[in-house]
Amino acid sequence: MIHYPKAIQQAIQELSRLPGIGTKTAERLVMSILRKKRADQTALVTSLANLQKSVQMCTTCGYVTDNSDGICHYCKDPQRGEQTICVVADMQTLQVIEKSGAFKGKYHVLGGTINPIEGISADMLTIASLIRRVQTAKGKIKEVLLATGTDIEGEQTALYIAQHFKTSGIKLTRLARGIPRGSNLEYADEMTLADAITNRQQV
Amino acid sequence: MIHYPKAIQQAIQELSRLPGIGTKTAERLVMSILRKKRADQTALVTSLANLQKSVQMCTTCGYVTDNSDGICHYCKDPQRGEQTICVVADMQTLQVIEKSGAFKGKYHVLGGTINPIEGISADMLTIASLIRRVQTAKGKIKEVLLATGTDIEGEQTALYIAQHFKTSGIKLTRLARGIPRGSNLEYADEMTLADAITNRQQV
Repeated sequence: MIHYPKAIQQAIQELSRLPGIGTKTAERLVMSILRKKRADQTALVTSLANLQKSVQMCTTCGYVTDNSDGICHYCKDPQRGEQTICVVADMQTLQVIEKSGAFKGKYHVLGGTINPIEGISADMLTIASLIRRVQTAKGKIKEVLLATGTDIEGEQTALYIAQHFKTSGIKLTRLARGIPRGSNLEYADEMTLADAITNRQQV
Repeated sequence: MIHYPKAIQQAIQELSRLPGIGTKTAERLVMSILRKKRADQTALVTSLANLQKSVQMCTTCGYVTDNSDGICHYCKDPQRGEQTICVVADMQTLQVIEKSGAFKGKYHVLGGTINPIEGISADMLTIASLIRRVQTAKGKIKEVLLATGTDIEGEQTALYIAQHFKTSGIKLTRLARGIPRGSNLEYADEMTLADAITNRQQV
């Protein structure tokens, strides 16, 4: 029979609760943590403890921050335009958009997408706070760019938000559909190709 | 430009030092930790802190233990034979052998295999302590089963240990080579097939 010290069993259990980490991987991670130097072990544990201690959600946009006033880097940045809010599902999407360098407005992080199968309903996202945010801005916010994914959940979430802003007079936009850069058209799917033809641009 | 709070940057850095975890995965893990409930975050951090606090290497065999005397579960087990020591590269291999249920002796965990490319030399493994252990047992240990892998590093390590026991009169064995259970011979490689023919067994 296999026998692990209790501390190892618990660490495996906790790690395997993280996404994409099964028991086998958790086991491998624990073994490698045990093999680390004492200082490196401490650094890992401290970094995770600090996550909990010092990081919170931005009270305006839902991104993360360690500022004591609870307002994140992007919301504070005076260089960023106040007129457009880019609505993203999660922080990773925000990162990708930032990397593109093409957006200079403010963000709103939903914290997921509406997904009935996984039990994520609209009220579990920061949609209400987005609506409040736009109302409170009293006309300062001119455009809401719905930058959710083009999968069913993303489209569904965008549609849900769009319905709430229908009568508000605010400009609602979404990311352009088309052929990705560097693509061989031979491998493009018909839906994307249809999108690209419908939205063809003048050169 | 992407901006993460410092605590997030550090947690990503520390997590991406673990094997098989790149920056992208570390980022995803950190985000999922941030989304967890406070109690679950604490459970994760505590479990990793406890690893460091309560787990140590068994002073006899190199496996892990949380016993205060530093002797592990397997070394303490009176049901296990003292005559055979099964030498394994790491704790995972020990687990697999235990799962097979075919070995009832004691173990010795090397902590890796000799691998010049990765800079792991024989003196970084518990080989010296294995030799000492056999000497101290004064004839009580009759057999050393070299259960290292059949890759170059495994074979190399087994060979190195074997040389040290050459003149000791101890019986040295290794795992049988042959066709794995449930294999279609069509897909067996020639080396394995050659092994299986050389070591053919009477039925």
